[in-house]
Amino acid sequence: MTPESFNQLVALLARLPSIGEKTAQRMAFFLLRSPPDYGQALAKAIQNTLQKVQLCPCCFSLTETAEAALCKFCEDGRRDEHLLCIVESVSDQLAIERTREFNGRYHILHGALSPLEGIGPEKLRIRELLTRLNHSATKEVIIATNPNVEGDTTALYLTKLLRPMGFKLTRLAQGLPMGGDLEYADKATLAHAFTARTKL
Amino acid sequence: MTPESFNQLVALLARLPSIGEKTAQRMAFFLLRSPPDYGQALAKAIQNTLQKVQLCPCCFSLTETAEAALCKFCEDGRRDEHLLCIVESVSDQLAIERTREFNGRYHILHGALSPLEGIGPEKLRIRELLTRLNHSATKEVIIATNPNVEGDTTALYLTKLLRPMGFKLTRLAQGLPMGGDLEYADKATLAHAFTARTKL
Repeated sequence: MTPESFNQLVALLARLPSIGEKTAQRMAFFLLRSPPDYGQALAKAIQNTLQKVQLCPCCFSLTETAEAALCKFCEDGRRDEHLLCIVESVSDQLAIERTREFNGRYHILHGALSPLEGIGPEKLRIRELLTRLNHSATKEVIIATNPNVEGDTTALYLTKLLRPMGFKLTRLAQGLPMGGDLEYADKATLAHAFTARTKL
Repeated sequence: MTPESFNQLVALLARLPSIGEKTAQRMAFFLLRSPPDYGQALAKAIQNTLQKVQLCPCCFSLTETAEAALCKFCEDGRRDEHLLCIVESVSDQLAIERTREFNGRYHILHGALSPLEGIGPEKLRIRELLTRLNHSATKEVIIATNPNVEGDTTALYLTKLLRPMGFKLTRLAQGLPMGGDLEYADKATLAHAFTARTKL
């Protein structure tokens, strides 16, 4: 019963992650209620991002073509050339950046191995990783894939691949989360925390 | 650390209702990962909606200028002219439509009285409601404002205003929700259900 253009907007908004039909409708009403500048700016920002944002040819993080060929992470001379952190996605990279704990280089795989979904090594940026490692000052490779089945598989695969190349290989520690509660920890995490207990 | 156009998109998305910084970021990544057609279509749909969708001059629901002056609800000759349902918003109207319980006309106030937020009768479509009622076949006015403080205030105000005009005035029933549980009903609802108990 609502106008066609409105229905179309709702349908497109509902395709966004974690947005259902009802939230999409609320968003569309919000756009109509807001000053038109806002909606115009949002539409422009989407077009702008699609047009300008590209993947960095070195680490495959985000970059703007207009700015430079390399992304800000690769361009930054103050970052440690000897450390390379491999992550599954740009959002994982940003999560690590927020900790301010790491000051090395990144490599973004854009996914994880998943035979069930037909994602093999050729669909990830692994060939580019090898080429890159052959011509870099990297000493330690930190595998920061997610602590789940796909991430573990990817980590195992990368370990086998990189071990012969002589790098120091590390992986993010797994165990109980900070501020967590033993009682509420899942079985797998608690079991791992036991096996991998650290000496005091 | 992410490109400027990307940051701008995230900031604008985060202004949508119920969308926080993290969800906005996930949405922006989703847009980048999807085929570019999708993002382009979304941007166009926003612009299209802002440009085409207008308020119906009779009931103030949504309509498309290109289609007709009146909205589909007002144009539909099969709807009962004698019933007029007053709602706060177009989403409330759509919620009522989904029930298929009502086949009369609508009037959308676009808000509810709220002295605290400075929303007086002049900010709602009340003057237009009166003009409309003076020239219509309406016999019963159903006040379907929300069952909260603002909605109740608005209903009271409208009752005082419309009573002298001789319409049959009704309001949506309040009580325990279907499938609800006495134990979990809030105090006010349960108290009202007692006072307004119906005869078997």
